[in-house]
Amino acid sequence: MFIAFEGIDACGKSTQIQLFAEYIKNRGLTYTLVREPGGTALGEKIRSILINEDMNPRSELLLFLASRAQLVEEVIKPALNRGEIVIADRFADSSVAYQGGARGLGVGIVERLNDFATDNVYPDLVFFIDIPVEIAIQRLEKTQKDRIEKEGADFFQIARETYLKLAKKNRNFVIINGNEDIDKIHRRIVEHFELRIASLNH
Amino acid sequence: MFIAFEGIDACGKSTQIQLFAEYIKNRGLTYTLVREPGGTALGEKIRSILINEDMNPRSELLLFLASRAQLVEEVIKPALNRGEIVIADRFADSSVAYQGGARGLGVGIVERLNDFATDNVYPDLVFFIDIPVEIAIQRLEKTQKDRIEKEGADFFQIARETYLKLAKKNRNFVIINGNEDIDKIHRRIVEHFELRIASLNH
Repeated sequence: MFIAFEGIDACGKSTQIQLFAEYIKNRGLTYTLVREPGGTALGEKIRSILINEDMNPRSELLLFLASRAQLVEEVIKPALNRGEIVIADRFADSSVAYQGGARGLGVGIVERLNDFATDNVYPDLVFFIDIPVEIAIQRLEKTQKDRIEKEGADFFQIARETYLKLAKKNRNFVIINGNEDIDKIHRRIVEHFELRIASLNH
Repeated sequence: MFIAFEGIDACGKSTQIQLFAEYIKNRGLTYTLVREPGGTALGEKIRSILINEDMNPRSELLLFLASRAQLVEEVIKPALNRGEIVIADRFADSSVAYQGGARGLGVGIVERLNDFATDNVYPDLVFFIDIPVEIAIQRLEKTQKDRIEKEGADFFQIARETYLKLAKKNRNFVIINGNEDIDKIHRRIVEHFELRIASLNH
């Protein structure tokens, strides 16, 4: 089972992934945790370029895709083949929301490029942790921001709206209200996960 | 005018590009010389990853494309807009021959991905310097080989055959016999260039 966590920056993904991974472990299941961009030797090199270098939107997308393709081949496919749960901190939908939506490259073209990069390996379940852009911006102001995090409210607004469109269109999406307290968000995620597990066993 | 030099490794491209650039200069024209992967700050970073890291074929292609997209935006489009001649040491067709052909990703998919990466900016003229694979392998044996140059004869054979197919299909291709002596090859290239210039002025 392949599970991705998505959302705009500062939505609380990392905290929830940590709690979820602990839950999975305590439940006696084995998981592999991956993050994007990165997660492989190649991906970490690409991540450093993405964080530090100026570039045009098409190159930005292609670098995310190059990292993703390696992650799929080197980590995700083998982990799924071993029967593990793969937990991804961002995956293909981040490119659709950020580069397709916010950068304006277009949702359709990014989806097609994702098909190539991922070799059509997609999550069974995507937890989209949704928070209003104002809250994200407030939270980001307290941190050292990287190149993408430095974008303004409009950028994150389009990313958020694109995620919401994907949630309507894609059956694997679950919208999680990221405005609730941490434990409540965690319980919602676990509920959805258990429902999915139960439906797979029938 | 945008001119690309293509061919399998060790075909003599670099020598011919040098001679051609000198010719262009002596003729009183201004040129910009670019090389792939590289040619921009971002591209040189990507080049170093491509030379040194192990990766799957899809990531390899996507990294070449990321470098190319930046080269088009940052260097090629501005130079063409200034009315200069752009001379490229490899461009989109290298990906078709190497990743599409030799790595087996498929010619059609690589062509479509090139359309995205280049924003449909393509050379007016492609000089494909053709040499038999045995000669390329002999020449490469005398040098320090990078990750791609270390591939075997079969790999270069498919790349060469893919170039030859592109030459049949694409009107902008000129096949140059790379087995002749350096000056003769140079004269052939200049002849074709002058013919093209003359036809543009009519």
